Amino acid sequence: MKEKLSVVKIGGNIVDHPEALQSFLSDFKQLEGRKVLVHGGGVMASKMARQMGLETKMVQGRRITDSETLKLVTMVYAGWINKSIVAALQKIGCNAIGLSGVDANLIPAVRRSPEPIDYGFVGDPDPTQINASFLSQLAESGIVPVFCAITHDGNGSLLNTNADTIAYSVATALSEKYETILYYCFEKEGVLRDLNDPQSLVLTMTQEECESLKQEGIVADGMIPKLDNSFRAIAQGVSKVIILHATNILTGRGTLLSGSVVKE
Amino acid sequence: MKEKLSVVKIGGNIVDHPEALQSFLSDFKQLEGRKVLVHGGGVMASKMARQMGLETKMVQGRRITDSETLKLVTMVYAGWINKSIVAALQKIGCNAIGLSGVDANLIPAVRRSPEPIDYGFVGDPDPTQINASFLSQLAESGIVPVFCAITHDGNGSLLNTNADTIAYSVATALSEKYETILYYCFEKEGVLRDLNDPQSLVLTMTQEECESLKQEGIVADGMIPKLDNSFRAIAQGVSKVIILHATNILTGRGTLLSGSVVKE
Repeated sequence: MKEKLSVVKIGGNIVDHPEALQSFLSDFKQLEGRKVLVHGGGVMASKMARQMGLETKMVQGRRITDSETLKLVTMVYAGWINKSIVAALQKIGCNAIGLSGVDANLIPAVRRSPEPIDYGFVGDPDPTQINASFLSQLAESGIVPVFCAITHDGNGSLLNTNADTIAYSVATALSEKYETILYYCFEKEGVLRDLNDPQSLVLTMTQEECESLKQEGIVADGMIPKLDNSFRAIAQGVSKVIILHATNILTGRGTLLSGSVVKE
Repeated sequence: MKEKLSVVKIGGNIVDHPEALQSFLSDFKQLEGRKVLVHGGGVMASKMARQMGLETKMVQGRRITDSETLKLVTMVYAGWINKSIVAALQKIGCNAIGLSGVDANLIPAVRRSPEPIDYGFVGDPDPTQINASFLSQLAESGIVPVFCAITHDGNGSLLNTNADTIAYSVATALSEKYETILYYCFEKEGVLRDLNDPQSLVLTMTQEECESLKQEGIVADGMIPKLDNSFRAIAQGVSKVIILHATNILTGRGTLLSGSVVKE
């Protein structure tokens, strides 16, 4: 039987809330088995952009990354957020290592085509190219990888990358060796039929149900790529995907995507 | 016989000069044996501080690091400079990994006493506490560690640390297992008797000669901690320390500190 490994994705703005961060990391540390953390950072990047007088350009909810913005997001994601999380994990005795996709060539990516929209220095990783052997070497040494959402093109350019996609890619690449569980943490309890009512939580969801919720407009915006990544992860070998609030990772209460194989 | 390992320290401003960076990294890649790179970044941090409207406070050539400055230097050193260098190394087929002292608890440090001068979030590493076994595990896997000058106190705080001291500490910690050579690259050919005359290069220097050059005022300012770190490194097991221009690392032409054991 394969050993368990959890890949947990959180937003980066948690770094701005020391108590929430410490409480989440303490839960994260208690998760059974090997683990990997992936963090975003968009909110803090936009805040820092304002401070530096840089304009934030978004198209369809995604950041346009020109060279100045690439510098900014690399500083915020790979620098401040990543190292602050690792320092907070070290404090509680969790031996973490902060990584981006360029380190040890862990996540090579391809710069996105400028057609139909030129997103600039933005890349998409290919899960089959991930350096899974080095990642499992770290895991076997009891070291917890903490990823920011920066990758590279192999030709000297760093690339801004969607953190949900990093989490999907890493989970998929590790699912060959491990029984992999992917947790997408966000600010709600999971997928809600009514955004204002936590009781309307959708406990399980098939891909067909997801499609009809999309058509009803209940699944919209940033939730769409999260769910697309989730079903792709399941199709490619990830055992279980749960979308939930960061405070619930130990109970696992949230939206469990079916197709997920629940092994007890 | 021990295997060779080189620890090379460069300034961080080289990242602002793509051609000089590429040429240096291509030389670095050709250095025989295992290697580790350590980079600074003070010039770029001061530039970024101006852009963000932060005041740079220096006392005796050292930066006072309040919490906003700590955030800034972590962004610049661990984020932009570190990942840019790693991306440039990956481009030329050198499998590098970007690290700070907090990652895998590689370089624990102690926050400097606020007496007589309160430098803020500034730390000094203890070479005996460095995680040398993980570093040599990386080296044996053919992975090249690239260090920025950020460490941590083990209690959740990142610490700004002198990059020369990081290089000294890492070289010293690795000298038990490897025949370690420490290269301090800077903007001159080495120690010069006359700063305006490259022909006045001091080819070798004992600790006594160093003391008298200090008294003559020929060795001054930033060169003093560099030389103090160098002689400390030699006393603690580093085989060879050379102070030289970054363009000369393959020839090794510069100031060789004696006490250095030259093994051919």
